[in-house]
Amino acid sequence: MKELEKLKELLKEISMINSAVSLMHWDHRTYMPPKGAESRAETVGYLSTLSFKKLISTEMGELLESLSKKENFDSLSDTDRTLIKVVKHDYKKAKAIPPELYQKYVIAASRSETVWETAKKKNDFESFRPYLEELLEIIREMVKLYGYEENPYDALLDNFEPGMTASKLRKIIAELKANLIPFVRLIATKSENIDRSFLKGRFSKRTQEKLSKEALKAIGYDFKAGRLDETMHPFTITIGYNDVRVTTKYETSEFTPSLYGTIHEGGHALYELGISQELKWTPLADGASMGIHESQSRMMENIVGRSYEFLKFFYPNIQKTFPKQFRNVSLDRFYKAINFVRPSLIRIEADEVTYNLHIMLRFEIEEALINREIEVKDLPKIWNEKMAEYLGVIPPNDSLGVLQDVHWAGGMIGYFPSYMLGNLYAAQFFRAAEKDISDLKHLIEKGNLAPLKEWLKEKIHKHGRMLKPEELCKNVTGEELSPSYFIDYIREKYSKIYEL
Amino acid sequence: MKELEKLKELLKEISMINSAVSLMHWDHRTYMPPKGAESRAETVGYLSTLSFKKLISTEMGELLESLSKKENFDSLSDTDRTLIKVVKHDYKKAKAIPPELYQKYVIAASRSETVWETAKKKNDFESFRPYLEELLEIIREMVKLYGYEENPYDALLDNFEPGMTASKLRKIIAELKANLIPFVRLIATKSENIDRSFLKGRFSKRTQEKLSKEALKAIGYDFKAGRLDETMHPFTITIGYNDVRVTTKYETSEFTPSLYGTIHEGGHALYELGISQELKWTPLADGASMGIHESQSRMMENIVGRSYEFLKFFYPNIQKTFPKQFRNVSLDRFYKAINFVRPSLIRIEADEVTYNLHIMLRFEIEEALINREIEVKDLPKIWNEKMAEYLGVIPPNDSLGVLQDVHWAGGMIGYFPSYMLGNLYAAQFFRAAEKDISDLKHLIEKGNLAPLKEWLKEKIHKHGRMLKPEELCKNVTGEELSPSYFIDYIREKYSKIYEL
Repeated sequence: MKELEKLKELLKEISMINSAVSLMHWDHRTYMPPKGAESRAETVGYLSTLSFKKLISTEMGELLESLSKKENFDSLSDTDRTLIKVVKHDYKKAKAIPPELYQKYVIAASRSETVWETAKKKNDFESFRPYLEELLEIIREMVKLYGYEENPYDALLDNFEPGMTASKLRKIIAELKANLIPFVRLIATKSENIDRSFLKGRFSKRTQEKLSKEALKAIGYDFKAGRLDETMHPFTITIGYNDVRVTTKYETSEFTPSLYGTIHEGGHALYELGISQELKWTPLADGASMGIHESQSRMMENIVGRSYEFLKFFYPNIQKTFPKQFRNVSLDRFYKAINFVRPSLIRIEADEVTYNLHIMLRFEIEEALINREIEVKDLPKIWNEKMAEYLGVIPPNDSLGVLQDVHWAGGMIGYFPSYMLGNLYAAQFFRAAEKDISDLKHLIEKGNLAPLKEWLKEKIHKHGRMLKPEELCKNVTGEELSPSYFIDYIREKYSKIYEL
Repeated sequence: MKELEKLKELLKEISMINSAVSLMHWDHRTYMPPKGAESRAETVGYLSTLSFKKLISTEMGELLESLSKKENFDSLSDTDRTLIKVVKHDYKKAKAIPPELYQKYVIAASRSETVWETAKKKNDFESFRPYLEELLEIIREMVKLYGYEENPYDALLDNFEPGMTASKLRKIIAELKANLIPFVRLIATKSENIDRSFLKGRFSKRTQEKLSKEALKAIGYDFKAGRLDETMHPFTITIGYNDVRVTTKYETSEFTPSLYGTIHEGGHALYELGISQELKWTPLADGASMGIHESQSRMMENIVGRSYEFLKFFYPNIQKTFPKQFRNVSLDRFYKAINFVRPSLIRIEADEVTYNLHIMLRFEIEEALINREIEVKDLPKIWNEKMAEYLGVIPPNDSLGVLQDVHWAGGMIGYFPSYMLGNLYAAQFFRAAEKDISDLKHLIEKGNLAPLKEWLKEKIHKHGRMLKPEELCKNVTGEELSPSYFIDYIREKYSKIYEL
C-alpha cells in the first residue's frame, strides 16, 4: 500500500527532525557554551515548528483519512492499525488548537514562568496570581477545543495519561489516603531513632560520577548506547534509537541525591532503549504514558535501588568508593538512613511513603481550578490546609508551599498525577515480576538484574506506545491498576524498618 | 523589497538546518555513544538533503533571478548585492551536477575511501587503483558540468579557492621551489645539532587539556562562545553564531602535537567568531576560502605560536605545567626543538619549511590526473620521483607515500593547494599586521595578543565571504598574493635558528 509507505516516510521525517531537536536540547543543558543560547533558541524554534507543521499538514490529514477507510484499514497489520490510531490521536490533538491560541498559550506560559521565578524567590504569590489566572483562562479555552466526556480536566490528563480520568483518580486517591495518612503519622512517631548524619560529608564529583556509572551498569544500562553527563536539572533524553542519554547533578555534600537520581533516570533510559526497533522513527517508539514511564524510573530508584537486596550487593561498592565515610557504617544503618520517612514541605525531596500525598493535593487543586470550583487567589490558603490535613505540616511561607513547583506556572496542568501513577504501576508491575521470575529478590541480592530487565523489556518496554496504559497494565499484571500493591509494598517495607 | 526578505528567510532556514547538522557532526566525533551511529547517519542524511533541496529549489531560483534584474539589483545595498552574487554562485554550482551524478560521486567516493583504508594498511596500491580511476572519471564528468575557462582543474579549485587557477599556482610554486628546495638542503646539513629528546615523556591528558585551554585563552579564544573537546581527528566547527567549538587529540608521549594542533584550530575559531553578526544566517557568514581560513590557523600555530616572542611569554606556563620535564630546559633549547626542520615522508607531520613541498607535488599530480597527462597506475612511481626531487627522501612503501592522505580517495581533488596558500597568506598578512600595529612582536612577547586579534577581525574576519580571497588580500596588504613574504619569513627565522 503506497499510502502507508508515504505516511511512514512522513513520520520518519518528523522523527528525524525531532531527533535533531533532542540533540540540541541535550547539548543546551550539558555542553553548550553560554553565548550559544541565542542562536540555539532560533534553531530549535525553527525545527520544532517544521516538525509540527508536518504533523498537521494537509498531506498528513489526507493520508490518515484514506488509510482509515474501512477497506484500507482492514487490510493493515495490527501494528500498522495501531500506528494509524495513535497518529490520528496526535494529529487531532495538534489540530484542535488554532495556531493563534497555541501561540497565546506559549507566550502566557513563558511570561507566567518568568514571573513565578521571581515570585518564588520573593515569596510573593500575589504578584504571580494574575499571570496564573490568565494562563488558566487560556487552558480552559483549550480544554473546550480538545473536548472531553465527563470532566474538563480529563482533556488535560489525556495529554499525559491516555485513558485516565479524574473520577478514576479520585477513587485511587481515596484508597491511598485512607491507608497512607495514618501510616505516615505512625512512622513519624518512630523516625527520631534513625541516624542519617553519615550521609553528609565531602564527596568529589569525580568519585560520585564513577559510582553513578557503576549503578547504571548494575541496572543494565548500555553505555555503548548512552552516556552519563552533568546538568542542572537532570533528565533522560532519546537522541535516536540506540542513543538514549542520562544526566545527573552532583552535590558535593551528599552523594545519595545524585546516585538515586541517576538510577531513576536510568529506569527511564532502559524503557526507551527497550522499545522494539520495529517501531523506530514512528510515534509508537515512545512510552505508553508519562505514568508508565515514571513507573520504570521509580521502580529502579525505589523498589529496586532502595531495597535491602540491591544494597546487599551494591553497598560494598559505596563503602569502597568512600571508605572513610562508610567503613564503620553497617548495611543495616545505611539502608535505614536512605529509607528515612518524614512528612516534609517539598515534593521533590519527599520519601516514597509521603510522596503521593504531595501529588494528591496538587491534583485536587488543579482539577478544582480548571472547573472553577476554587479561585487562584485562595490557593495559598487551600494549599496550606491540605498540607496540614495530609502531611501534618504547614509551610511557613508560599515559596515552600504553593510556589514550589514550576508546573502550573509553565502551563503544565494535568501532569502531576503521572508521578503518583508511576509509583502505583511500579509496585503492581514489580509484584507481577516477582511472580514470573522465580527468586527475583535473590537474583537482585546477587547483583543479577538481567532477568528483571529482560522481563520489563518483554512485558513493557518493547511495546512502546502500542498499548494504552490500561491495556498494558492488564497484559502485564492480569488486572486493572490498583493502589493496593503500592500500599502493601509500603506497609511491608516500612513496618520492618520502623518495627511497627 | 519583499523578495529580498523572502530570500533571507530561505537562507536562514538553510543555515539553521546546517547548524543542526553541524551539531550532529560535532557530537558524532566527540560524545556520541557508538551505537548511535546508525540513527545519526540517517538523520544527518535527511537534514543535509533537506538543506540542499532548499538551496536548489525553484523558489530559490526565482528569487535569485528576480533580484538579479537590473532595476532590483541596483536598488540593493552593497552587502545585499554581494549576498546575491554569492548565493547565485553556490546555487549554480549545486545545480550544475544532476542529482544522479552527484549520487554516483558520493557512492564512488565512499567506496574508494573504504578500499583506500585497507590498501593503506596493507600497502597495496594496486587494490585501490581501479576505485581511484573510477572516481576520477566521475570527477572529470563533473568538471565539464561545472565549466572552466582555461584548465579543467580550475573548476575544482574554485570549490575551495574562488578566483585561483592552476596557472597562478604554477607561478607561485616555481618561486617557492627555487627558494625552498636549496634552503631545505642547507638546513638538513645542520639539523643534527638540535636536541629534541626532552619533548618526549609522559604527559597526562588532563594536564595537556589545561595547557591547551590556556593557549586558547592566550590567543583570545572566548570560552563563553566555544569549547575544547577531545576527538580522533581534530577539527573546528561552527554550531551557530557565538558557538564555535575546537577539538583536539592528546598523545600521552608528547604534548606539542596537541598544543599546536589546538592553537591551529583556535586560529580557525577566531576567524569564525570574528565574522560580523550582520552576516549571520547567510552564506556570507563563512570564510573567504579554505586558503584564507588556513592562513588564520597557520598564522596562530606557526608564525605566532612557534615564534620566540610568543614562547617568551608562554614557555613559563609549559615549564610550570610539566616542571620535571622542562625545569632544566631553557627557552632557547625548547624554541629550537619545536622548530626542528627535516625533510620527511608524511605531510601532516611536516615542519613549516618543508610543508609546502609536500603540497606542490600533490598539486602537480592531481592537476595532471584531471587532465589525463598521467595515469593512476603510474602514481607510486611519480610520487616517489617527486619526493626525491623536492624533499630528497624516498618512501620505503606506498603507505608512507602515495597512499598517506585520504583526500584523493575521498574525491577531494583541488583541496591540497589551500594548505599551501594558507601558509603564504599567513606570512603576507602578518607582515601587514606588523606594519599596522606598532611593536607587534613586543606585544606578543608580553602575552598581549588582543591588538593582533582585533586587527585580524577588522581586516579579515568580520568580512566573512564578502570579499574574494584576492580582493581581501589586496585590501589587507595592498598587493596580490606573493610567495616572497613566506620565503622571507622562513629565511629570516630559520637562518637564525640554524645559524646559516
